[in-house]
Amino acid sequence: MALQRQKFAAESRVITTEIVMPNDTNPLHNLMGGHLLHLMDVAAAISARKHSNRVVVTASVDNVSFEHPVKLGSIITLEAQITRSFNSSMEIFVVATGEDFMSGKQLITNKAFLTFVAVDQAGNPIAVPAVVPQTPVEKELYESALRRRQLRLVLAGRMKPEEATELRSIFFKD
Amino acid sequence: MALQRQKFAAESRVITTEIVMPNDTNPLHNLMGGHLLHLMDVAAAISARKHSNRVVVTASVDNVSFEHPVKLGSIITLEAQITRSFNSSMEIFVVATGEDFMSGKQLITNKAFLTFVAVDQAGNPIAVPAVVPQTPVEKELYESALRRRQLRLVLAGRMKPEEATELRSIFFKD
Amino acid sequence: MALQRQKFAAESRVITTEIVMPNDTNPLHNLMGGHLLHLMDVAAAISARKHSNRVVVTASVDNVSFEHPVKLGSIITLEAQITRSFNSSMEIFVVATGEDFMSGKQLITNKAFLTFVAVDQAGNPIAVPAVVPQTPVEKELYESALRRRQLRLVLAGRMKPEEATELRSIFFKD
Amino acid sequence: MALQRQKFAAESRVITTEIVMPNDTNPLHNLMGGHLLHLMDVAAAISARKHSNRVVVTASVDNVSFEHPVKLGSIITLEAQITRSFNSSMEIFVVATGEDFMSGKQLITNKAFLTFVAVDQAGNPIAVPAVVPQTPVEKELYESALRRRQLRLVLAGRMKPEEATELRSIFFKD
Amino acid sequence: MALQRQKFAAESRVITTEIVMPNDTNPLHNLMGGHLLHLMDVAAAISARKHSNRVVVTASVDNVSFEHPVKLGSIITLEAQITRSFNSSMEIFVVATGEDFMSGKQLITNKAFLTFVAVDQAGNPIAVPAVVPQTPVEKELYESALRRRQLRLVLAGRMKPEEATELRSIFFKD
Amino acid sequence: MALQRQKFAAESRVITTEIVMPNDTNPLHNLMGGHLLHLMDVAAAISARKHSNRVVVTASVDNVSFEHPVKLGSIITLEAQITRSFNSSMEIFVVATGEDFMSGKQLITNKAFLTFVAVDQAGNPIAVPAVVPQTPVEKELYESALRRRQLRLVLAGRMKPEEATELRSIFFKD
Repeated sequence: MALQRQKFAAESRVITTEIVMPNDTNPLHNLMGGHLLHLMDVAAAISARKHSNRVVVTASVDNVSFEHPVKLGSIITLEAQITRSFNSSMEIFVVATGEDFMSGKQLITNKAFLTFVAVDQAGNPIAVPAVVPQTPVEKELYESALRRRQLRLVLAGRMKPEEATELRSIFFKD
Repeated sequence: MALQRQKFAAESRVITTEIVMPNDTNPLHNLMGGHLLHLMDVAAAISARKHSNRVVVTASVDNVSFEHPVKLGSIITLEAQITRSFNSSMEIFVVATGEDFMSGKQLITNKAFLTFVAVDQAGNPIAVPAVVPQTPVEKELYESALRRRQLRLVLAGRMKPEEATELRSIFFKD
Repeated sequence: MALQRQKFAAESRVITTEIVMPNDTNPLHNLMGGHLLHLMDVAAAISARKHSNRVVVTASVDNVSFEHPVKLGSIITLEAQITRSFNSSMEIFVVATGEDFMSGKQLITNKAFLTFVAVDQAGNPIAVPAVVPQTPVEKELYESALRRRQLRLVLAGRMKPEEATELRSIFFKD
Repeated sequence: MALQRQKFAAESRVITTEIVMPNDTNPLHNLMGGHLLHLMDVAAAISARKHSNRVVVTASVDNVSFEHPVKLGSIITLEAQITRSFNSSMEIFVVATGEDFMSGKQLITNKAFLTFVAVDQAGNPIAVPAVVPQTPVEKELYESALRRRQLRLVLAGRMKPEEATELRSIFFKD
Repeated sequence: MALQRQKFAAESRVITTEIVMPNDTNPLHNLMGGHLLHLMDVAAAISARKHSNRVVVTASVDNVSFEHPVKLGSIITLEAQITRSFNSSMEIFVVATGEDFMSGKQLITNKAFLTFVAVDQAGNPIAVPAVVPQTPVEKELYESALRRRQLRLVLAGRMKPEEATELRSIFFKD
Repeated sequence: MALQRQKFAAESRVITTEIVMPNDTNPLHNLMGGHLLHLMDVAAAISARKHSNRVVVTASVDNVSFEHPVKLGSIITLEAQITRSFNSSMEIFVVATGEDFMSGKQLITNKAFLTFVAVDQAGNPIAVPAVVPQTPVEKELYESALRRRQLRLVLAGRMKPEEATELRSIFFKD
C-alpha cells in the first residue's frame, strides 16, 4: 500500500471530553496539572495517529502554562489537530477548555504544542504525509511551526541560537 | 505559627520509583509520554509541598523532550528538588531515569522544570520560604532559574523579549 | 436565573475519543462490553448536563447489542446528543465508532439510547428545557423518542402493553 | 477433551461484592450508572465463562433501569447466573443489591439480562453446554428466555415483529 | 438504636469474584501479590462492616504466603467471614481461590487472617457484637482466634512471650 | 553472563513517595490498609529486582500492623532494602512513613518484611547473589532474618516448632 503523500490538517482533528473526577484533583478539589498533561498527550497522540496511520511516540511537549483552576465535576474538552509535519515528526496543537459544573460558563483555555514521531513495528522512524492547511488559522499555525521547531532545537541543545533565524526574528524585531 | 524564612534546597528532595505497567504503555509496549508527564508533575508537586508546607498548584511545565523509549516492566525513578522560589512560586527540577528490566542498565535521563504556586485554603497565592542552595549543582540551578523564568514569561506573552536581559545573553553571546 | 425554556438538540452534542488500553480488554485483546457501556454512560451524561446545566443521574439504558470486536489499540469515538426531553428526563442517543489501529478503517457502529433525570442539590427531579430538533435526523429521533419511551415503560411494568399505542404500531403495522 | 453436554444453571452462579469508591460517583456522591453497568458486565462474563469454560464476549445488554441512588461507601453485591443457552450464546441474569453504609438496610434491587457468545482462540463462536434449570425460579427464567430473545432480535432488526410469536403474547394477550 | 449484642458468624459472610487483568500482573503475566493483598483487605473490610455496621479500619494482617502463581485472565474468588470479636476489634478469615482460564481447575488456596477495628465518626474505637459460631469449622476458628491474637501481640511487642500461654502450647506441645 | 556472587544490601535500596488520593481512602478519609500493603509490595518487589536483576514473585508477607490513620492528601514515603538472601529467596524490609498535609509532621512508621523469589522466564526459581550488610542496622537485620525465616516456616507448617532453634530463643529466653 502506497503511503498518501499529503493530507488536510482537518483530517486529523480529534475532540475528547471528560468529567473531572475525585482522583484527578488536588486537596482543594481542583484538577491536577499532571492529569491535564496526560489527557493532552492522549488526545494529541490520537490526532498524530489519524494523520500518519502509524504507531506514534511523544517526542516533546512545549512550554505549557496553567492559568485558572478547573473544579471537580467540571467538563474538560480537548481539541487536537496537526499543524505541520517534518519527515517522520508531527507537531500537534491541543486546546483544552474547562466548563463550569452548572453555569455552563467556559472557564479556561489552555494551549499546548506536542510533537510526535511515527514509527514502524520495530520502533524506527518512518515518513508521514505532508500537511495541507486550509483555513487562515491552519495556515498561520503551519507557518509558525517552523519557529517553534527552532526554539525546541535550541532548548534541546541541538541547534545553535545564532542559526535559529526564524526564532531570532521573534526575540529581536530589529 | 511564623513561616520559616528560608530552607535548604535539599530539604525538598523527593524520590519516587515506579514499574511501567501495561496500561501505561503504547501498542509497542513503551511508556507513554503523557504518563511520564503525570508522574513528573506528582513528584514535583510533592517537592513543592515539602518546601512550602502548603497546597500547591501547577503553574507551568517547561519544554520537555523524550529521548529514548522506556519498555514495559522497566523501573522508572524520578528525583525532584526545588531550585529557587519567587514570592509564592517555586521552580522544581525533575530528573527521570529508566532502568532496564533485567540488565539493570540505566536507559534514559529525562529532565524537566515545573513551576508551582503555593495557595491558602481559599486558593489565593501565599509567600513561600526562600531557597538556600548548597552544592555547586544547586547553586548553578539557582542562578539559571532567573533565565528560565524570563523565557517562560516571554513565551506566555507576559514579558517583552527585549526586556528579557538574562535570556538575551543565551541567544546572543556577544 | 430563569431557566431557558428550550434549546437546540445540537447544543448538547458531545464527542469523546479514547484508545482501547490493555485493562479495557478481554483475554482475546478485544474491548470488553462493560467498558464500552461505561464510556457511553459518561458521554451521554455529559450531553444531558450540557442540555440541563444540572447534575444528572442515569435512569435507564435501552437494549444495546455489540456487533463486532474492537481490538486493543483501536480508537473509539463516541458521539452523544439529546433527542427529546420529558419534564425532568432526557433521552440521549450515543453512537460509538471503532477505528482500526493502522488502516484507519472504521470497524463498528454501536448505537444506544440512555435516559437521564436532572436533579437539584437534594437529589429531587427538576424540569429541563424542551428540545428543538433542526435536521431531518434530529426530527426523526425526536418523533421516535415517544415510541422508545413507551417500550421502556412497558418493560419496566409501568405501562400496560395495550396502552402503548405508539409501540403497537411498530409491532403490528396494519 | 469432549465438551460436557449439559450443566446445571447453579454451577454458573457468581457473587461479587464491592464498595462504592469516590471515583465511581457523580457530584452528588451517588454511584454512576455506567460503573454499575461495568460491574454487571464483569460478573455476568465470569458466570458465562464458568458455564462454557471458554473466552466469552458480550453480545447484548437488555433494557436496564436504575431505580434508586446508591451512596458513596455503600456495599454493592451482584449475583449472576445463566438462565439458558442457545448454541454458542448464553443469557445471564444479574441482580445488583445496594446496602446502606451503616444501617445495613438493603436499598435497591437492579436487574439485568446480558447475553454472551463463547468463542475459540480465533474468535469464532463455539457451542456451549445446555442449561439444566432445577428450582422453580430457574425454570421460569429458562422458559421466559425465549421471549426475551425474540424481543432482542426484533429490536436489533433481525426478526420481523409478526414472527415473534412468544413476544406477541406478552404485548397482546388476546 | 441499641446495638445488637451478638450475631452469627455466617451473617458476615462476603464473597467476591474478580478477573485477573493486565495491570494486576507482573512481567510473567501472573497476579502480583500486592494486588491480592489489596483484594483480601477489601473483602475482609466489607465482612467486618457487615458484622459491626460501622466504619472499620485495618489493624493488622497476619503472615500470608503465596503458594502458586495465578495467571492473567484467571478468576479469583475471595470468601471472607468473621471468626471472633474482642471489644472493638474483629478477626476476619479470608480464603482466596484461583480458577484457571479455561479448564475450570481450581489452582490455589490462599488463606489470611486480618483484624479490623470498628470506629465512630470521630475515628474512636467502638464496641461490636459478639460472634456466635455455629458450624464445627466456625467453632474451631473461634477457639483458635485467641492463639492468633497472642501471636500478634507478641510480634507487636505488646505482650511478653512468657505470658502468651495459648501460644506456648503450639510451640511446645509437652 | 556470570551472575554476581554478592552485592551490598544498600545497592537494593528503593525509595518511593505517593500522595494519598480519594480512591485510596475509607469513608473517614483515611488511607485503606490494603492500598498500603499494595504499595509496600511494589516497593519491595522493585528492591528485590534490583538485587537479583530478575523477575521476582511475592512469596510471603509477615505480620503487619497499622498503628495510626494516614489522612487523605498526606504524603506516604516507602523505603525498601534487602536484608538477606537464601538461594533464590530474598527478604526485603519496608518502612512506610506518613507526613501530614501541611505541618510536615511525620505521623506514622509502619514496618513490614516481605519475601520474594527470583524466577527465570519459565517461572522456575533461580539463585540470587548473597547480601553483604555494611552498617550496624544492616548487620542486625541480616542476623535476625534467620529468626524471621523460621517463624515463617513454622507458621506455614513447613518446620516443626521444636526445630526452630533461633525462634525458640526469642519466645523462651531460658
